[in-house]
Amino acid sequence: MVEPATATQAAAPAVPQLKDELDIVIPTIRNLDFLEMWRPFFKPYHLIIVQDGDPSKTIKVPDGFDYELYNRNDINRILGPKASCISFKDSACRCFGYLVSKKKYIFTIDDDCFVAKDPSGKAINALEQHIKNLLSPSTPFFFNTLYDPFREGADFVRGYPFSLREGVPTAVSHGLWLNIPDYDAPTQLVKPLERNTRFVDAVLTIPKGTLFPMCGMNLAFDRELIGPAMYFGLMGDGQPIGRYDDMWAGWCTKVICDHLGLGVKTGLPYIFHSKASNPFVNLRKEYKGIFWQEEIIPFFQQAVLPKDCTTVQKCYIELAKQVKDKLSKVDPYFDKLAEAMVTWIEAWDELNPTGASVPNGKTA
Amino acid sequence: MVEPATATQAAAPAVPQLKDELDIVIPTIRNLDFLEMWRPFFKPYHLIIVQDGDPSKTIKVPDGFDYELYNRNDINRILGPKASCISFKDSACRCFGYLVSKKKYIFTIDDDCFVAKDPSGKAINALEQHIKNLLSPSTPFFFNTLYDPFREGADFVRGYPFSLREGVPTAVSHGLWLNIPDYDAPTQLVKPLERNTRFVDAVLTIPKGTLFPMCGMNLAFDRELIGPAMYFGLMGDGQPIGRYDDMWAGWCTKVICDHLGLGVKTGLPYIFHSKASNPFVNLRKEYKGIFWQEEIIPFFQQAVLPKDCTTVQKCYIELAKQVKDKLSKVDPYFDKLAEAMVTWIEAWDELNPTGASVPNGKTA
Repeated sequence: MVEPATATQAAAPAVPQLKDELDIVIPTIRNLDFLEMWRPFFKPYHLIIVQDGDPSKTIKVPDGFDYELYNRNDINRILGPKASCISFKDSACRCFGYLVSKKKYIFTIDDDCFVAKDPSGKAINALEQHIKNLLSPSTPFFFNTLYDPFREGADFVRGYPFSLREGVPTAVSHGLWLNIPDYDAPTQLVKPLERNTRFVDAVLTIPKGTLFPMCGMNLAFDRELIGPAMYFGLMGDGQPIGRYDDMWAGWCTKVICDHLGLGVKTGLPYIFHSKASNPFVNLRKEYKGIFWQEEIIPFFQQAVLPKDCTTVQKCYIELAKQVKDKLSKVDPYFDKLAEAMVTWIEAWDELNPTGASVPNGKTA
Repeated sequence: MVEPATATQAAAPAVPQLKDELDIVIPTIRNLDFLEMWRPFFKPYHLIIVQDGDPSKTIKVPDGFDYELYNRNDINRILGPKASCISFKDSACRCFGYLVSKKKYIFTIDDDCFVAKDPSGKAINALEQHIKNLLSPSTPFFFNTLYDPFREGADFVRGYPFSLREGVPTAVSHGLWLNIPDYDAPTQLVKPLERNTRFVDAVLTIPKGTLFPMCGMNLAFDRELIGPAMYFGLMGDGQPIGRYDDMWAGWCTKVICDHLGLGVKTGLPYIFHSKASNPFVNLRKEYKGIFWQEEIIPFFQQAVLPKDCTTVQKCYIELAKQVKDKLSKVDPYFDKLAEAMVTWIEAWDELNPTGASVPNGKTA
């Protein structure tokens, strides 16, 4: 049986990396008791909590954490009419946290994710591994059979072109889950007892031109490099679909990373995913998505961005246009989504004016 | 420290899979003492040994193995003038074994590869894992973040299109190496002490459109599906280059698999690679390849095969034409190589006439 780690204190690093350059974004409807377990790892960092349900409810945050909390009223107040692009009653609202952050890096995690143990029994500091992933280059143009060549004890293998060994900047670090795997409703229904117990000790770059299902449960990214593409769409209350927020962000992000020459890594770190969500509720949320993804994925696989799309914002606006042109025939929902994508970029630019100072001294 | 396994007997399966449908091809210049360690796993299978040096030397094969052995004289006798396409004094000659085999599957292994141990200390039956890889589908069109969805305890994750879950037939299974990693001469020179000690418990499909450095040390493939593409080129005696035989086969194979909708898997199984080859000797062999690969790889990345290339042979002949057209300007060697590629296919077709019966009853 897989179990979460218990003693996490000992595994905390003496000097937390990127302490002033990274925000942890957590969407929640519950009390954040799960933070107790993460305390040794998260305490030095600033938290941005986005409350995804009824704003009159009080979210209890354990003592001693440095945080800001936004509920729906805050989102409406800050964004005004542009608040329409932020989902309500759905964890997709987490992307509001990306918008208001002023840091270079984001780590986002779900409140049912606990600290996992590596095969030796040691508590895994997921954030530390994400930072390692983000601070080392990616290799999207050619596959390295020993996985991430920048890890200790690994390198590029024979036959890997030397001109590609510099790699490209890493924009996204996608972490995985022990215990409850991130399955869709049909798979949950068919395999209710399946647990992920396999610890795969690897990080790898997802090759250029290949799409992947990005899960928002345990995810980090470079906000300066790719932030405006991390829009989690229109889900939840009043929308015909749910549980495709992170998928949507992942498809858009990957197409834009490929276009701009940025890298996406997946693999380590693992978190311990504690609770399977209700497969019947999930099926209702996913139902339309199961059909739609059969058309959405070929759309993204074929999407080409013109050369003059040199910023993430320009790429994203162009993608919105293509979504309107090519996916509206699938369902009118995509018309609405394409408009929300544009609104999202307007909101992003409003809250993140160009040239705004960022902690590491670079400009976005 | 990494060490090879010692007690392998206990790990042998009661019923060897594909016993009559798989040949093990071994190129060698030495005595095959390494087979002692593999005995429990290899004994039920037929071996094809290709002697890559002086034919007057006697190769000693341990008792009790079922094998056929070919030296240069045999190759010349069997192929006549077409023998010119088979390398001499280089392990690239192993592909002669693929040519004369009449089985559906090939496993090829170097004679300095021993049985590795998994993290629990159990001897790894590499052949058994290769067979698992080859008999389960590949998923080249979309990345699955939990790796091979066909492994026990794994599946397709949320967001993986259902229309792609059938997968495609797996043509190649590329295994890895513990202890001595497969580095090029410059990396060997820079990191003489580096050992691969990381056991990554994963098998994954290399996505469509992505090339990889295929190592011939621990490799299995479906000869019926992809055999004619597994030509190891002109290396060794009389050639300006060495140590690019498997790379060449890998590039050609991947382009053809992508074109024909076949899968290539990499990852498990590991073997224990015992001996680092001499980096100075390797540098001399690789020297030109280090420059050439910078042009060869973009060539293969851009290679497009026309729709009427519906068999591996047709694809390969077309690739030979493109090599002649586009790589001859890099070096006259590629002219010669392109001609040898055509000769190889002629030899293949001569020794493997269409409609020839194959053990599993299908025709190639």
